[in-house]
Amino acid sequence: MKLQEVAERLHCRLDGDGAREILRISGIEQAGPGDLTFLANAKYAGLLATTRASAVIVAESARDLDAPDGCALLRSPDPYSAFAHALGLFIQTSAPAKGIDRFSAIAPDAAIGPDVSIGPFVVVGTKATVGAGTVIYPNTVIGPHATIGERCTIYSHVSVRERVVLGHRVIVHDGAVIGGDGFGFAKQADGTHLKIPQHADVIVEDDVEIGANTTIDRPAVGETRIAAGTKIDNLVQIGHGVSIGRRVLLASQVGISGSTVVEDDVVMAGQVGVGGHLRVGKGVVAAGKTGITKSVEPGEFLTGYPGIPNREWRKASVIFKHLPELKKRIEELEQRVAELTEKLAECQPSTDR
Amino acid sequence: MKLQEVAERLHCRLDGDGAREILRISGIEQAGPGDLTFLANAKYAGLLATTRASAVIVAESARDLDAPDGCALLRSPDPYSAFAHALGLFIQTSAPAKGIDRFSAIAPDAAIGPDVSIGPFVVVGTKATVGAGTVIYPNTVIGPHATIGERCTIYSHVSVRERVVLGHRVIVHDGAVIGGDGFGFAKQADGTHLKIPQHADVIVEDDVEIGANTTIDRPAVGETRIAAGTKIDNLVQIGHGVSIGRRVLLASQVGISGSTVVEDDVVMAGQVGVGGHLRVGKGVVAAGKTGITKSVEPGEFLTGYPGIPNREWRKASVIFKHLPELKKRIEELEQRVAELTEKLAECQPSTDR
Amino acid sequence: MKLQEVAERLHCRLDGDGAREILRISGIEQAGPGDLTFLANAKYAGLLATTRASAVIVAESARDLDAPDGCALLRSPDPYSAFAHALGLFIQTSAPAKGIDRFSAIAPDAAIGPDVSIGPFVVVGTKATVGAGTVIYPNTVIGPHATIGERCTIYSHVSVRERVVLGHRVIVHDGAVIGGDGFGFAKQADGTHLKIPQHADVIVEDDVEIGANTTIDRPAVGETRIAAGTKIDNLVQIGHGVSIGRRVLLASQVGISGSTVVEDDVVMAGQVGVGGHLRVGKGVVAAGKTGITKSVEPGEFLTGYPGIPNREWRKASVIFKHLPELKKRIEELEQRVAELTEKLAECQPSTDR
Repeated sequence: MKLQEVAERLHCRLDGDGAREILRISGIEQAGPGDLTFLANAKYAGLLATTRASAVIVAESARDLDAPDGCALLRSPDPYSAFAHALGLFIQTSAPAKGIDRFSAIAPDAAIGPDVSIGPFVVVGTKATVGAGTVIYPNTVIGPHATIGERCTIYSHVSVRERVVLGHRVIVHDGAVIGGDGFGFAKQADGTHLKIPQHADVIVEDDVEIGANTTIDRPAVGETRIAAGTKIDNLVQIGHGVSIGRRVLLASQVGISGSTVVEDDVVMAGQVGVGGHLRVGKGVVAAGKTGITKSVEPGEFLTGYPGIPNREWRKASVIFKHLPELKKRIEELEQRVAELTEKLAECQPSTDR
Repeated sequence: MKLQEVAERLHCRLDGDGAREILRISGIEQAGPGDLTFLANAKYAGLLATTRASAVIVAESARDLDAPDGCALLRSPDPYSAFAHALGLFIQTSAPAKGIDRFSAIAPDAAIGPDVSIGPFVVVGTKATVGAGTVIYPNTVIGPHATIGERCTIYSHVSVRERVVLGHRVIVHDGAVIGGDGFGFAKQADGTHLKIPQHADVIVEDDVEIGANTTIDRPAVGETRIAAGTKIDNLVQIGHGVSIGRRVLLASQVGISGSTVVEDDVVMAGQVGVGGHLRVGKGVVAAGKTGITKSVEPGEFLTGYPGIPNREWRKASVIFKHLPELKKRIEELEQRVAELTEKLAECQPSTDR
Repeated sequence: MKLQEVAERLHCRLDGDGAREILRISGIEQAGPGDLTFLANAKYAGLLATTRASAVIVAESARDLDAPDGCALLRSPDPYSAFAHALGLFIQTSAPAKGIDRFSAIAPDAAIGPDVSIGPFVVVGTKATVGAGTVIYPNTVIGPHATIGERCTIYSHVSVRERVVLGHRVIVHDGAVIGGDGFGFAKQADGTHLKIPQHADVIVEDDVEIGANTTIDRPAVGETRIAAGTKIDNLVQIGHGVSIGRRVLLASQVGISGSTVVEDDVVMAGQVGVGGHLRVGKGVVAAGKTGITKSVEPGEFLTGYPGIPNREWRKASVIFKHLPELKKRIEELEQRVAELTEKLAECQPSTDR
């Protein structure tokens, strides 16, 4: 694709030779001739001088850029988003061919929309629905009465269990399990655990992305819901009856216990854990490995276990490793106070008594 | 189903009109006409006044209940268990049809019991056994010489590896891997790792439930065992040679390192980690994210990393965030003690010396 | 196999009757007649006296061993490695039969080497390559243009996504996902997240082992690389653009965030988490559950969250549970200093003023 066309498609202002051919998108350090790259963070501006890329996407407002001779600039008000769009121009699809592979097992009464791609060894259960333009990679199983919206991408080895509902443009990565049983048992007098059947609803709204080998559980009653635009990374656990708001980001290996509500725009870094029956307020941010043990007000930034405000945590955790020294100082103080007390006992009280 | 019949099946005492039709089981807040719900926790008794359910399961002993007119009560000595049984009355099965799907690959010498349901793209290896009434969902693989007991439910994309033994009524959720290689290597003089082959036994006893994408490893020698009635949640790791006792509950994302023994009735909340070659005593409880680094006596309740008694942990962790203030107080004490020391030096010793 | 032959194959010096038949390899406590076992750790030397094994592999240098009458000894300079080799002599394979199962879906233009074993319901995409002697278990999916080297073992339900490259002798356990999308989004002005397409390279070098349900992500640009000889346990997350060095050991449930570099010979115990864009130096060791929040110099041994040198962490964490007592001691000191101050005020200043 000519650089001129790339610039137009990305709504960038071109500063350089639009006739050159762009073949690939690369990182600024690996880029070579024919490559387009980007510079979204001023911190890395120094890398521009030595890049061998044919063109670089930069901020509209960037000044004093020291690009090599012959390296074109594409100026954008939002270079990181322009980079995302640029990547989209060069995607080679790996999707199964249009149509339904003959080695699949599609229930005769399933409703399959137009323009779908369904790979080999895919199962679609009785009365399930697959929306127009949806792509299902090989060896995935869509359960009975499940509903998949339009233009979804379901990768391989995914289990979309019975009656689960996915909205439009949902992406589900390999091995994710949506609608498995919640972990619910009633303890019996003899110490055994009676299973509480888990057969209620799981709803995943539009534009949600679900990572590889992530598990989203089904509750006994009510619903588990992932609201529109939320993105979930790999190996995340969403307990039964959990409600995740809109535009939430959950990084890898996060675990949310049953019946908890995570409000809109929350961000959790990797390996965060959240207890059950809690409410995590709108826009809360939790640093990696935070353990959230009680409900959190909107807008808080938590860290640690139990999760406390990041500011407090940082100050306290710096001191943690000095605990042996603090203990020693306390012991010395005790020693000195004992000595002072003894000495003072020897002192003459003032004579005005 | 008529409410009268529901009451009889659940062994509840009916207080209301037994002729009404029950269509669904719901949560007390979502329930509407035709719904049966439950009230197991006195804390939520206030919700009873406004429920629109047709009937509510309540404790035999509950007094002063303020149910709306026309809302029947089902009285049970154990309302939570009665609720579990009620859910069981209304389950719609999603299991594959009885018989063996023609798109499966069943070894001719596998022993398949009567009344099984085996879905499409299931593989059952040579000399494997599948017990009577067991259900295997699509795309699951049962390895050679594996033994599956009676009335088990194995969901999709499960790997039951060669020679693994499952008891009766075992439930394995989607994507679980039972019998993969333990993580064992012998470090060589050149720094490389020689694989220790892992080919010994994995035994899962009766009535065990294994969550989605959970992994249970096979040891080099000896066995990995999950004893009867234990329930394991999603994304849990059970290392090679681990022995888990009876009626243990392991919540999501727990990890148990190799050769550790977890005794009966232990409960671990989410993201707990346990080191290798340890013994976790009968009835131990570990709060979420606890790191167990040494063996634990029966009955302890641990929290934190390293795990310490919950009582101690709670008191200590409350103080953690005040460390900066404590440090300041120590500094002030040091300052004041220095001043006192100086002042005391100016003091007259008592004259009786 | 005769013990004499076992001794020769393991390059051990035989001390006992080489004519006896060895049937199995077992742990020293479980071993019975016909079993070979091992004693690699002097700590367990006491178990030798009561073993019922027919033969025991022991250290060349071990002295004063108290083996039962008739129990042969195999002396080796490295008994643990000899044990690993011994296990290899008795492996019963569970691999699919040689050749390509007729229930598989192999693209006509895929390049399949000689002597492969490909099980039922396996998919190999267009222009993919599978090297000589490689074994692919049932229901695994190899994406278009992926390259699998020679003598690899790919277990069931694995996703090797499009264009991923695996070297020779790579082992991938059930359910692992190699080449799923990295978790990368550009936040838009309206709060939504624009997906950054993730289509760059994933390279897994020779002799790497990847655990069950582990996920290794693909970056937008550049590559994710696992260097030769590295061993990764189950349920591990490797973020996009991560570079893992040679001979690294990552235990179960470890998570490495995007763009981080883990140098050669690093060892991370279970549930360790590493932040993004960091460098973990050669030979670093991290104890279980450590949270690595900044780059680490080679050779460090870290523990805790944030990860600090193990020595410091151990000293500090011992004191953690005594925080309530330390706080009390500070309060008492404050009280006593106040009393001293008061008393001192009553004191006669020395008369030389």
